[in-house]
Amino acid sequence: MMIRFLFALTVFLGYNLILHAQNPNDLWLQQHPAKAVNVQYKSKSPLVLNAVKALKQYWQGKEGADISLKLVKSTAIKAEGYQISGNTISATTEKGLLYGAYAMLRAQISDENVAALVSNPSYENRILNHWDNLDGSVERGYAGKSIFWRGEGDLTVSKADLDRWKKYAEANASIGINGSVLNNVNASAKMLSAPVLQRVKAIAAVLRPYGIKTYLSVNFSSPTMLRDLKTADPLNADVIAWWHKKVAEIYKEIPDFGGFLVKANSEGQPGPQDFGRTHADGANMLADALKPYGGLVMWRAFVYSPSNEDRAKQAYQEFVPLDGKFRDNVIIQVKNGPIDFQPREPFSPLFGAMQHSSVMPEFQVTQEYLGHAYQVAFLAPMWEECLNSDTYQKGEGSTVAKVTDGTLFSQKHSAIAGVANTGLDSNWSGYTLGQANWYAFGRLAWDNQLKSDQIADEWLKLTFKQQAQPDLIQDWNKNFLQPVKNILLESREAVVNYSMPLGLHHIFAAHHHFGPGPWWAPKNARPDWTPPYYHQADSLGIGFDRTPSGSNATSQYHQPLADVFNNPDTCPEMYLLWFHHLPWTYQTKSGRSLWDELCFRYDKGLQQVRNFQKVWDKTSLYTSVEVYEETQAVLKRQTFDAQVYKDACLLYFQQFSKMPIPHELERPVFDLKALESGDPLDFYPQEK
Amino acid sequence: MMIRFLFALTVFLGYNLILHAQNPNDLWLQQHPAKAVNVQYKSKSPLVLNAVKALKQYWQGKEGADISLKLVKSTAIKAEGYQISGNTISATTEKGLLYGAYAMLRAQISDENVAALVSNPSYENRILNHWDNLDGSVERGYAGKSIFWRGEGDLTVSKADLDRWKKYAEANASIGINGSVLNNVNASAKMLSAPVLQRVKAIAAVLRPYGIKTYLSVNFSSPTMLRDLKTADPLNADVIAWWHKKVAEIYKEIPDFGGFLVKANSEGQPGPQDFGRTHADGANMLADALKPYGGLVMWRAFVYSPSNEDRAKQAYQEFVPLDGKFRDNVIIQVKNGPIDFQPREPFSPLFGAMQHSSVMPEFQVTQEYLGHAYQVAFLAPMWEECLNSDTYQKGEGSTVAKVTDGTLFSQKHSAIAGVANTGLDSNWSGYTLGQANWYAFGRLAWDNQLKSDQIADEWLKLTFKQQAQPDLIQDWNKNFLQPVKNILLESREAVVNYSMPLGLHHIFAAHHHFGPGPWWAPKNARPDWTPPYYHQADSLGIGFDRTPSGSNATSQYHQPLADVFNNPDTCPEMYLLWFHHLPWTYQTKSGRSLWDELCFRYDKGLQQVRNFQKVWDKTSLYTSVEVYEETQAVLKRQTFDAQVYKDACLLYFQQFSKMPIPHELERPVFDLKALESGDPLDFYPQEK
Repeated sequence: MMIRFLFALTVFLGYNLILHAQNPNDLWLQQHPAKAVNVQYKSKSPLVLNAVKALKQYWQGKEGADISLKLVKSTAIKAEGYQISGNTISATTEKGLLYGAYAMLRAQISDENVAALVSNPSYENRILNHWDNLDGSVERGYAGKSIFWRGEGDLTVSKADLDRWKKYAEANASIGINGSVLNNVNASAKMLSAPVLQRVKAIAAVLRPYGIKTYLSVNFSSPTMLRDLKTADPLNADVIAWWHKKVAEIYKEIPDFGGFLVKANSEGQPGPQDFGRTHADGANMLADALKPYGGLVMWRAFVYSPSNEDRAKQAYQEFVPLDGKFRDNVIIQVKNGPIDFQPREPFSPLFGAMQHSSVMPEFQVTQEYLGHAYQVAFLAPMWEECLNSDTYQKGEGSTVAKVTDGTLFSQKHSAIAGVANTGLDSNWSGYTLGQANWYAFGRLAWDNQLKSDQIADEWLKLTFKQQAQPDLIQDWNKNFLQPVKNILLESREAVVNYSMPLGLHHIFAAHHHFGPGPWWAPKNARPDWTPPYYHQADSLGIGFDRTPSGSNATSQYHQPLADVFNNPDTCPEMYLLWFHHLPWTYQTKSGRSLWDELCFRYDKGLQQVRNFQKVWDKTSLYTSVEVYEETQAVLKRQTFDAQVYKDACLLYFQQFSKMPIPHELERPVFDLKALESGDPLDFYPQEK
Repeated sequence: MMIRFLFALTVFLGYNLILHAQNPNDLWLQQHPAKAVNVQYKSKSPLVLNAVKALKQYWQGKEGADISLKLVKSTAIKAEGYQISGNTISATTEKGLLYGAYAMLRAQISDENVAALVSNPSYENRILNHWDNLDGSVERGYAGKSIFWRGEGDLTVSKADLDRWKKYAEANASIGINGSVLNNVNASAKMLSAPVLQRVKAIAAVLRPYGIKTYLSVNFSSPTMLRDLKTADPLNADVIAWWHKKVAEIYKEIPDFGGFLVKANSEGQPGPQDFGRTHADGANMLADALKPYGGLVMWRAFVYSPSNEDRAKQAYQEFVPLDGKFRDNVIIQVKNGPIDFQPREPFSPLFGAMQHSSVMPEFQVTQEYLGHAYQVAFLAPMWEECLNSDTYQKGEGSTVAKVTDGTLFSQKHSAIAGVANTGLDSNWSGYTLGQANWYAFGRLAWDNQLKSDQIADEWLKLTFKQQAQPDLIQDWNKNFLQPVKNILLESREAVVNYSMPLGLHHIFAAHHHFGPGPWWAPKNARPDWTPPYYHQADSLGIGFDRTPSGSNATSQYHQPLADVFNNPDTCPEMYLLWFHHLPWTYQTKSGRSLWDELCFRYDKGLQQVRNFQKVWDKTSLYTSVEVYEETQAVLKRQTFDAQVYKDACLLYFQQFSKMPIPHELERPVFDLKALESGDPLDFYPQEK
């Protein structure tokens, strides 16, 4: 009996006590005993030395191999790209050598073939936006406090800071990220104060040797908020002078400073319109100040106001008339969809429409609307979906990728931004699988044609493969890689299904955006901040009519898209209720009524997550106890939350549809009134 | 489209606007337009007049039928029994006529064949025990405040009181209940004070015309608690005199008073042992006082103390030696199982062992351990299981029914008690389906050979059938009766599965006994009040060893039962862990290990309740909106609670088994530490 018991214990625990336990801090740069490697190189610059160091630290190729790092002249190698030929890594820039070195290392684990390869980045600037506040909090951050800020009163740089920043920089370099905006777009003017800039300088010094430029978000009213001036009017000479002086002060400390990210006249932030000026007036004023130093302005197009106009239309209406009026060092930063990082949106019609401006996509790596760090959602499929969306602006094939990366329009600059999911949590991202989103953003920023499958494959191999026990490695693909990759690849669609399928959007609980709140509409709330504004459910049907009979937002899309979207029969079902208000009895492609189809989708999402649990629970042999249990806990909660979503939305909408939930489906377990009167963040029982 | 919508609305709501809406207050005595009936009768006594009134109020037989009520002499008709021959109801007592009248009415709805029938009650006394307190609260009551008491300060009798008591009396009469203990076994001495007795008198006056005797629970220390004496020693002459005087006082007001129910030397209640006397000394002293008036003492055998002896053995050890020493108007009241109203227990070994005393079963109608009024649990199958358990005390076939109803032993009195589930809630029982338990108790008390299936059938027909719309009546059996009866009949086993399968018991959350608490064992708690005392889980296995290698409780059972229980291979699996501590790897009858089997049972319970939801949700056409939605809400919560139970117990026990939950099973969704740190009553989100 004791023997049977011990056997059972081993099978249950399943953790090889001698395996190299994964350290969540290590991200996808797991520390394995490296093999010996000789590296030939000439430049002793920090970038090249970091390339050499990485090769020596992580080498898993042929024992004692000889690797050469060569700066070359080449027309095939563009910008920060690199070439790998056998054991030689060539580049025209030192950054290229660094990226080439990591590419070679990555390939050793991920089985990528890099024996003969030229790889050039899709975007010149591949930037993480940190919505980190000076006080150490992170807006929409679910991984602990800021890695950059601890509060105004504590600007000293500690050893822990330096270690964290260095690891951060190394991780970014390994996937080609070359820029970091260090603070929240809802920016404090104090970011530009001298003591804070000293800390920025210290951060920049750590990031620089890894090829990462430092940027800041700025508050457009900084001159007045810092009490230097009485106006922030961008055409005012004192304001112009103020910014020129401030920029000079920054560049004196940080000569390779990247530039400014600006959220202006958006959700209460100040901006040029406060003084009767345009976004172009504002952006250009800052651009002029930065121009002498090579700095950029990333000016966000995420603008809308509580008008009678469909919120989805407003950014386009404001920015398209300004096309061609921006300085060449201004890039218009556009969220993937026209509303706000929803689980699914059609692409923003601004992509491809502003043909005389540099336009960059903004993705959200942190899961503001996709379950925070409580739910597994691998976002590469969402970004891939956006990048591959055809805008038709230059004929068929004018994808969002091609209209932003310089392929179709001669932009002076190209860039892509991801709102980071990093924090001080030991796993960096709130939950370990969330690291895959950081990884995926970097990889897609480098190569916007990459497939989600490949990205997931790479990340899983880099993060977990070398931990596997030797006797389990032969079944690793079958027992870990494939099933867990399936979880990752299906996860975002599961979130869509259980939260807002068929084109529903923004029916979240108020403020924190976690969980359902389709009913939320206090009398004094701005209508465009309430879910009923978006779902428009009534006795006749559901959905937002954006066809010509409604807001006509479809007219912002290039033909034939407008026509495709206008007709519910041709409109992709995933956008159906984004563009249409349809009767509950409308027949969907499955043959089911719209109501029944909604029920099936919500239930499917729940069943998908339940299945993720089953799949994950079988993988205990393949990860550390820590990661196994952490992921198990996330999936538990996700199943619970999926049930909350399903029940809340179906029971709420049922009040309008007056139709039964199809009887073959699992029934709701929650009470609508209870869900309406509580907070979705509180429903899941937590340890007291 | 509008037409499609309206059709959908009708299908969804499904409620016939013109049907006679069920009134939960009406219990199974639904008010339907009665047909005309002529009743012949001689006696004008209240009992007979109530029989006549019932016939006229509920008659659904042949229009204008002539019915005769006849008092006859008969040897076939025993005690309060009746005979029905065609249109004649005969009885040897007026109560018999009343019961016969209700039987005829019941048959008109339930299709019971009563054309030629003699029906005699299994037990002489069929009694509800109300655990109602003077302050209006009800111990283990989940249906609102007491129907009898509002507090010492408010003893006036209102019209609402009289109406409620009358309806209560009528409902009891309709199923043959002929006694009510009006107050909690944890009795206040103040029950015997003059003002309170005046209210008892008023209640008795309402119950009497329906054939119901009134009883009181008494505190054994009443003489001292009321400050009349300094001792309650049953052999003390002053004490004896005190009780004689008190009994005389009661009978002066209530000449047909039933007698006393006593919980003595049990869970802190005072009793004769406080004075070095035996239970027999105490019971006999009270019996002597009651004897001149025909009153009974029901003395509870629910006794145990925090000793080293297995709690399950203690009642037997204390009472069997006293067999034959009780007066003939004492009945020993024994809970169905040896512990305490668990979802499943083997029968108490006292049944059949006390062959020279009157012994009565005590069942619990209120769902203290089976989900309160938050979970559907139809208890007839549990009571049927107990009544049909073979004690072997007089050879094979010596069932609990036969050893208590006078068939096998010549008891002076026979009786059966049910702890009521009534309260002031409009549905009487906390949830409407809970009324079925009150009904079932009454019917089994009358006929302890009835099958659960028949009882459920009767109750559903009486309560719901006549509400069905005429056009739905032809499918009523298929679409309502059968599926809902299946829910009822399966419900208790579902509770067993998701809460404590395979003989597990008493692993409830502390105090309120709602939900799981297998971990609950504070340092200062009495061990026999903590779940680990009962489940005994450790690294080797789980279960309470009650074989000779353990507490040897099996020795209290008559052979061959002791042998059957002692061997895990012959022990019925439903009692397996009640009698055995078995290794986690023990092979159960399914071929699965004990651990796997536990997992399957817990999960099965959850899936069963989910299925109840599916079944119930299809019945909207067949009940009132109120009952439909109320039951839907109960089943929702039950599904949630089943998940809590499953997760709590499996994750807790897994800490000992160290074995994986079989991978084909749905995974837990809750976190063990969260469940351990919270209260199961609070986990389900409720409207704020």
